[in-house]
Amino acid sequence: MDERLKKQLDFLLEIDKSKEVGRQTYLADGTRKENDAEHSWHLALMAILLSEYANSDIDVLKTVTMVLIHDLVEIDAGDTYAYDVEGNKTKREREIKAADRIFNLLPKDQADKMRAVWEEFERGDTPESQFAAALDKTQPVILTDKQGGKSWLEHGVKKSQIAKRTASVSLGSKVLGDFVDDAVERNVKKGLLKDE
Amino acid sequence: MDERLKKQLDFLLEIDKSKEVGRQTYLADGTRKENDAEHSWHLALMAILLSEYANSDIDVLKTVTMVLIHDLVEIDAGDTYAYDVEGNKTKREREIKAADRIFNLLPKDQADKMRAVWEEFERGDTPESQFAAALDKTQPVILTDKQGGKSWLEHGVKKSQIAKRTASVSLGSKVLGDFVDDAVERNVKKGLLKDE
Repeated sequence: MDERLKKQLDFLLEIDKSKEVGRQTYLADGTRKENDAEHSWHLALMAILLSEYANSDIDVLKTVTMVLIHDLVEIDAGDTYAYDVEGNKTKREREIKAADRIFNLLPKDQADKMRAVWEEFERGDTPESQFAAALDKTQPVILTDKQGGKSWLEHGVKKSQIAKRTASVSLGSKVLGDFVDDAVERNVKKGLLKDE
Repeated sequence: MDERLKKQLDFLLEIDKSKEVGRQTYLADGTRKENDAEHSWHLALMAILLSEYANSDIDVLKTVTMVLIHDLVEIDAGDTYAYDVEGNKTKREREIKAADRIFNLLPKDQADKMRAVWEEFERGDTPESQFAAALDKTQPVILTDKQGGKSWLEHGVKKSQIAKRTASVSLGSKVLGDFVDDAVERNVKKGLLKDE
């Protein structure tokens, strides 16, 4: 087989492991927690269907690519729960090492391109990366709000914690930022998020 | 909440069920079968990374959109295994009904657009839909080839069955068509696909 195609297929087989990287968010029906591949698929469709709410014009294909690959590093680095203080201290270092290994399975031109898209997501300094981050932080709220707050209750999540995390949603999308703020208030009232 | 956003979020919550529609293909490591959301995520990244192998120039974003939504109808219609003769007789009718319900959860402009993309995939008469179909048929071969033929053995799949199904891969991509042909021959030799 052609060396280029072989590298591409090796990468595509390696990332199959994303289907086994567990997240803390439950499916909307609460039966089980979702994994990175499912989460990324959901974000990709959000990027396509909600792009009208990005604060600036965005390149939708770049944003979709970004959300499809944004969690691949977790194959090696694992999912770090948003409210895990210790885990978040070493997160960046673990993820850089993972990016070095995983993206470099691809032919060099594609490895460089995917790595650049991932780094852009991490930096969050472009309309696409800010909208992608908004989706990444909104999606668990949508699911958890629908599902009944299970992961918030399990981790005793406080309003201040989620508010800090979701403040950046407005940076990518004011509309989604408002939605998240409303959802937080609603769930504090229901007792599913802790008020302080 | 704005009516338009509400419809979009209702749709996004409804399609969460794709994470629970099981397929017959095992993950590359053979631990369990994959679901529609995972499969669609995988195809989306294949569309991005393998677009250079499409027989004609393709609109990558349209192709990605297509593979992300191509199996949504299975939320209602269920996954029909490729080699299930009886199930395949009623497949189209069940899927049309599902498309009528699911896409129409969206605001009308987006419902029409997504429905049109899905119908194009079903017709398979454009470079995008032919490449998307090529990916849809190649991905299970890649996984099952890597994994050791488990789903082929479970269903006693014959070379002639898989060859018929994958002949259309070449219509979208000669390169992937050649890869699939080689993989089929290799797995017949290994005894994982039945020769006749």
